[in-house]
This record gives sequence, structure tokens and C-alpha cells, in this order.
Amino acid sequence: MRKSIGAKTIVYPTPVFIVGTYDKDGRPNAMNAAWAGICCSSPPCVSIALRKATYTYGNIVEQKAFTVSIPSQDFVREADYFGIATGRTEDKFFAAGLTPEKSDLVNAPYVKEFPLSLECKLLHTLEIGLHTQFIGEILDVKADETVLGDDGLPQIEKIKPLIFSPSNPSYYGIGEYLGKAFSLGKAIKPR
Amino acid sequence: MRKSIGAKTIVYPTPVFIVGTYDKDGRPNAMNAAWAGICCSSPPCVSIALRKATYTYGNIVEQKAFTVSIPSQDFVREADYFGIATGRTEDKFFAAGLTPEKSDLVNAPYVKEFPLSLECKLLHTLEIGLHTQFIGEILDVKADETVLGDDGLPQIEKIKPLIFSPSNPSYYGIGEYLGKAFSLGKAIKPR
Repeated sequence: MRKSIGAKTIVYPTPVFIVGTYDKDGRPNAMNAAWAGICCSSPPCVSIALRKATYTYGNIVEQKAFTVSIPSQDFVREADYFGIATGRTEDKFFAAGLTPEKSDLVNAPYVKEFPLSLECKLLHTLEIGLHTQFIGEILDVKADETVLGDDGLPQIEKIKPLIFSPSNPSYYGIGEYLGKAFSLGKAIKPR
Repeated sequence: MRKSIGAKTIVYPTPVFIVGTYDKDGRPNAMNAAWAGICCSSPPCVSIALRKATYTYGNIVEQKAFTVSIPSQDFVREADYFGIATGRTEDKFFAAGLTPEKSDLVNAPYVKEFPLSLECKLLHTLEIGLHTQFIGEILDVKADETVLGDDGLPQIEKIKPLIFSPSNPSYYGIGEYLGKAFSLGKAIKPR
């Protein structure tokens, strides 16, 4: 039986993206965004949706730049902290014991200790409702050497990214490998 | 050592959303979208990014409605098939042996056999580049009774959603529970 549970923001998975910015005085900040994802292949773009009340909102409007860092599951506590505290009153990098590394491409810092980061230039701003969506062009992806495979690309098994579940606000790890995309489905034939 | 790997669409996780639509003749179609996510809490909205070349693109422009169904990992083959075949020449629901159930709120079908579905009314269309982003207001979430917990909400452990990894195009399951959000981070104190 199908049951209606109402107009809610419930999907699985949602990501845990740590958005890095500088404020107008050059102070680094980081926040946790789950309302986010890739939104274009060419140019490569990522979207993040934030409330106007966040400190990061003003920073992106000011700097027209942000980074997205992907925490590994070893940093679940720090990632959650970035979603609780506000950069208005706290130096979140300092409190979390993490390092803001300035991007060499845009005026925004990424989290040095996290295995993967995207450096983004603001391309579009879309007011939706409570959240504003920022779309950033990904100018570069940088990864820690230790998470790269023989093909020179990051490996999800080495990154161990976090998954956010919105219905019981909780974090999960990545599970078992289920198979190759654009391949498994070939077993199904048109009929 | 941090290594530059170029301007690529690499993040983790990305979702596996099956987007359901009708064409102008009322024929149901479904496609697989990973460039997608929640983008606003109020009104509750989900965004999906598609290439103009997809059959679904024309259907959404025509119907101003779509659904998002979340496949459980038992349906990884069918989900992948929805991303390989095109509704222009194939009846994908029929080939996959799945049922298009008409939404009672919008003119779009969801996948009856999948545990969770969102019924969406088109709110915004944003041309980005190769992909166009459609933002839909979530009018209702419907779930199979078997995936609901005592609180009446879906449980990720029962849904067993798929995760897509873009760097080695592959599917993964959900892993271990790591802790409660807006809670774990309280262990970190401002200093």
C-alpha cells in the first residue's frame, strides 16, 4: 500500500558538502549543505542551496566564489559542527582544528584535511523560496593523492564520503559495490 | 599532497532519481538522473538537470510536471536501464516490467514498484549549458507502507537507495549508520 506522507523534502541520498568562503574581511568560513548536487556537465557546475540567514550567503554574494569540500567519514563530527555553528560569531575552522587552504583559482578556501575539493566561480543565483540556489562553475577538482586510483581519478572507496538522510537527520557511510553504470541495464532488452 | 584533476563533475554521493513523465500522447516514460537534489525547504523543491536531447526534456516542457521515484537496490538493473534506453523509441516501463502509476496530483507517472516517489509541479527552468535544470515543487511524497518507521516517515535502511559514483560510473548501496545530525557536532566547542 502506498501512503501519502505530505509535501516534504525527503529523498535519498543527499550529500554532505562543506562550502568554503571568505567574508569581506578575508576571514574563512565553512558550512554544511545537503541541498546540493551536480547540475551541468558542460560547463561542469555544482549547485548549493542556502538560506539567506547563513553567513555563507553574504560571503558568496560578496566574493562570487566558493569551494565544496567532501569530508570523509572520519570527519563526521567536524562536518556536523559546520552545520550547527555560525561563522558570524565563531571561527569554525579554528574550533574544528581544520585548515582553510586558499584556492589558487578563486577567492575561497577549501578544507585541507578533507580528501576532495571543488573550486567554483559563481555563475547563477536563483531565488526559490526559503533557500537561494547558487550555481558555481567547477574550475578545478583537487584531491589528496592517497584517494586516487591507477586511472588518476578519485576512488569512492578511499574517499569514504558521508551521506545525509533527511527523514531521521543522520549520517551514513557508503555501502557495497552493486555494479557498473551504463552496463547493468543492458541485460534488459526492448520488447 | 593535493593533486589537480581538472574541471570535472566529481562529487560523492550523487543520487539515482528516476524521473517519470508523460509525453504529449500520454505515453509514460522514465529516465535516470544523477545531476539532481533537494534545493529548497519551503516550498519543498527538488531539482533535476537533463540534456535537451532527452525525451524527458520535451515531456516536462509540455506537461510542466514530473515525478521522482527512488529505486531500492533490488532494482539497480532497471534503474540503469532507464539511463541507457530512450523513450523516443522504447516503452521503458514495459521493457523493465515496471508499472507507471499516475499521480493523483500532477500529470506524471511514478514507478509503482519503487519504495518512494515525489510528485512535482514545474516551478523554474534554468538553462545552464549542456544541461537544463528543472526545479519542481514537491506536492506530495508517497511511500510504500513497508518502508515507514513508527514515526510514519520513510527509513533509509528499509528503502536501501542507490548511490551513483561519477568517477568510476558505478552504483553503491548505503553503508553503516554514523550518527545523528545537529548533534554529533556539539562535541566541538567554540574556542
